[in-house]
Amino acid sequence: MPRYADMSKAELETELAAVRALYDEMVARGLSLNMARGKPSAAQLELSLPMLDVLDATADLAAEDGTDCRNYGVLDGIPEAKRLMARLLDDEPENVIVLGNASLTAMYDAMVRYLLFGALGSEPWGQLGEVTWLCPVPGYDRHFTICEALGIRMIPVPMDEHGPDMDEVERLVAEDASIKGIWCVPKYSNPTGITYSDDVVRRLAAMDTAAPDFRIFWDNAYAVHHFSADAAEQDTVLDIAIACREAGNPDRYLKFGSTSKITFPGAGVAAVAASPANVAEIKRHMSAQAIGHDKLNQLRHARFLDEGRKLAAHMARHGELMAPKFDLVCRRLGEELGEAGIATWTNPRGGYFVSFEGPEGTARRIVELAKEAGVTMTGAGATWPYGDDPADSNIRIAPSLPPLEELDAAMDVFCCCVKRAALEKILAD
Amino acid sequence: MPRYADMSKAELETELAAVRALYDEMVARGLSLNMARGKPSAAQLELSLPMLDVLDATADLAAEDGTDCRNYGVLDGIPEAKRLMARLLDDEPENVIVLGNASLTAMYDAMVRYLLFGALGSEPWGQLGEVTWLCPVPGYDRHFTICEALGIRMIPVPMDEHGPDMDEVERLVAEDASIKGIWCVPKYSNPTGITYSDDVVRRLAAMDTAAPDFRIFWDNAYAVHHFSADAAEQDTVLDIAIACREAGNPDRYLKFGSTSKITFPGAGVAAVAASPANVAEIKRHMSAQAIGHDKLNQLRHARFLDEGRKLAAHMARHGELMAPKFDLVCRRLGEELGEAGIATWTNPRGGYFVSFEGPEGTARRIVELAKEAGVTMTGAGATWPYGDDPADSNIRIAPSLPPLEELDAAMDVFCCCVKRAALEKILAD
Repeated sequence: MPRYADMSKAELETELAAVRALYDEMVARGLSLNMARGKPSAAQLELSLPMLDVLDATADLAAEDGTDCRNYGVLDGIPEAKRLMARLLDDEPENVIVLGNASLTAMYDAMVRYLLFGALGSEPWGQLGEVTWLCPVPGYDRHFTICEALGIRMIPVPMDEHGPDMDEVERLVAEDASIKGIWCVPKYSNPTGITYSDDVVRRLAAMDTAAPDFRIFWDNAYAVHHFSADAAEQDTVLDIAIACREAGNPDRYLKFGSTSKITFPGAGVAAVAASPANVAEIKRHMSAQAIGHDKLNQLRHARFLDEGRKLAAHMARHGELMAPKFDLVCRRLGEELGEAGIATWTNPRGGYFVSFEGPEGTARRIVELAKEAGVTMTGAGATWPYGDDPADSNIRIAPSLPPLEELDAAMDVFCCCVKRAALEKILAD
Repeated sequence: MPRYADMSKAELETELAAVRALYDEMVARGLSLNMARGKPSAAQLELSLPMLDVLDATADLAAEDGTDCRNYGVLDGIPEAKRLMARLLDDEPENVIVLGNASLTAMYDAMVRYLLFGALGSEPWGQLGEVTWLCPVPGYDRHFTICEALGIRMIPVPMDEHGPDMDEVERLVAEDASIKGIWCVPKYSNPTGITYSDDVVRRLAAMDTAAPDFRIFWDNAYAVHHFSADAAEQDTVLDIAIACREAGNPDRYLKFGSTSKITFPGAGVAAVAASPANVAEIKRHMSAQAIGHDKLNQLRHARFLDEGRKLAAHMARHGELMAPKFDLVCRRLGEELGEAGIATWTNPRGGYFVSFEGPEGTARRIVELAKEAGVTMTGAGATWPYGDDPADSNIRIAPSLPPLEELDAAMDVFCCCVKRAALEKILAD
């Protein structure tokens, strides 16, 4: 099959008729498959079932410092949980605050604190005329939702295979003091799966910002979420904390992470790691909001993952379940769409997503077609601020939840929808 | 022994010398006892140990509606947890949002939302010149800390045995539109242990408020925390939801509660119950902050407490452990201080505290003396906004944590400190 761009109108019409017939066949199958969210599969969840046996009625429920984990207290986490989360966040335990069940809540609350109280003595952001945030695109919809909900203006910045376009980022932050920060998913980024280069990390840490209280929200959600257990096949990212310190901007970053995609999403442990000044500030504000988080769950996690020493082995088992799914997605995309020359996609070594770029003006149509054929994708536009992808071309593929057979069936549908939308678009233009 | 007020100066001096000698003896004992916070005792925590066996690796981890409690989702709680918390909050499951581990966080977050977004369409409170809150006193220090941290001005309102002084409350809210709400611990109040009368509840629900978006933060922290299992010995409180609906102010209240003092403090489940409009508003804002809370812990609690059907029996066992401690405190206060006529105290039928009123100008001194003798009390002034008890007379006694023998020793010290401070004060005046 030639590239669609090289086909005659008659050839395109013949192809479209065939694709439509195939599509109708797929609709008739009455599928109900979901590739919308980055949810672990049942098989992945089973990997952590033994964690439920770690704390039973006969267990020692004291933390190593003697704290009774059943009772009140300990705002910032028990020592063993701090060590676990420090390992995950590539930091020192003393820079870690262990939180509740979700890094999303940690990020929302951090943003709220800056709005209400400012950052290390700066004016509360909520009292400024405008607060602006940089949003590398395609990016994570729930990040954008936090900004939108809190009335923070968003500026999209393009991503490439090294991270955000740093020329653009540096230009923007230098000239506009209302720009108070940037969202970053530095490793196996959501949704592109790329990892920031050392150069990008260093430039983020060192750039001149018109706002003296500029903050990098460093959502290292996929820090240990490799597909391969072979270090040579894994991405690494430069530590933003070290880069910021070296650049003389030690308070510029907040690192976020959780065990949601390590143990149980929603029943995991989240944490923030930050500079001593930021840690002190967070704890001061947080002391009005909480007495302490769930220390039994902290203890359960610290023991199950041996304070992080078992992380690599545990994540290798996740990787074994994830790798075939990503292989399948990329293989099927290549087989179905490669020759037509109508799309590109990423091929990550970890994380939860493949970022798909179809022809301009087709993403909404593709997602709609897939939905009608029983395959739920992440909404088109979700990877852009305000749900508005100006090219209407990007779709996030989330292959983790369905079993392989279902994923295969879902990719049949998806590829068919891409072809149909592309052909309709070309013929309409 | 006569009342101190009836003693001559010489008699008072003799008594003071004796009390000082006794105090020195107590200091020499080198005690280290804590009556500062309302923490359950180790024996109480043991009552819930079997809960740790409810979910093991072989358990069915699906909620009744099929939700896999291990995975993401369900913003407002699984059905069985809603029923549990509805029973605790005296409401219907559909009016309940199940939250994280702490009602304190629920209250802080609710206040933050009103500051940022307003209430059901009103102007965001944070954009008003001043926001004021009514604080029945003596009250709960962490409530006051929330207001102070968020820059909300506090007005103390006296409590009596029926609840807040409603004449004063009605007068204040009618004339000052900056007064946006009131803290209420309606049952076994912290620290007085009293329960609001039906009349007080109805007046709170029905009063005319200058602020149309006035809110009652109804912290029913001790809803089922009776000392006796005999219903005749238990307090009951009128449901604020029904009272508000009947008064035509259906959105005026938010009810808060948690299982912190039922199962494990910090590892429990919290919830809010509210009107349909308030529930919808909370969920809308919360959807930017969270995907869902810890559903495994919700499931664990719902099963352990049989969705609330086992609450009464479980709390009866707590009561068996608490009753002797409160009996001891009140008995010792009566024996040691009754005749001297220098103090009053409450004698609650549930909750976690005894509220103690010493002579004016002695509370700080008493707490300081006790501290030097190895007994940590709640800080004097803590029961008032800004830590400022103008009479310097109120002390919160928290007898739950120490075992009975230790509590006895602690009461020795406390009563001795009260007598010493009172005598010093009388002789200095």
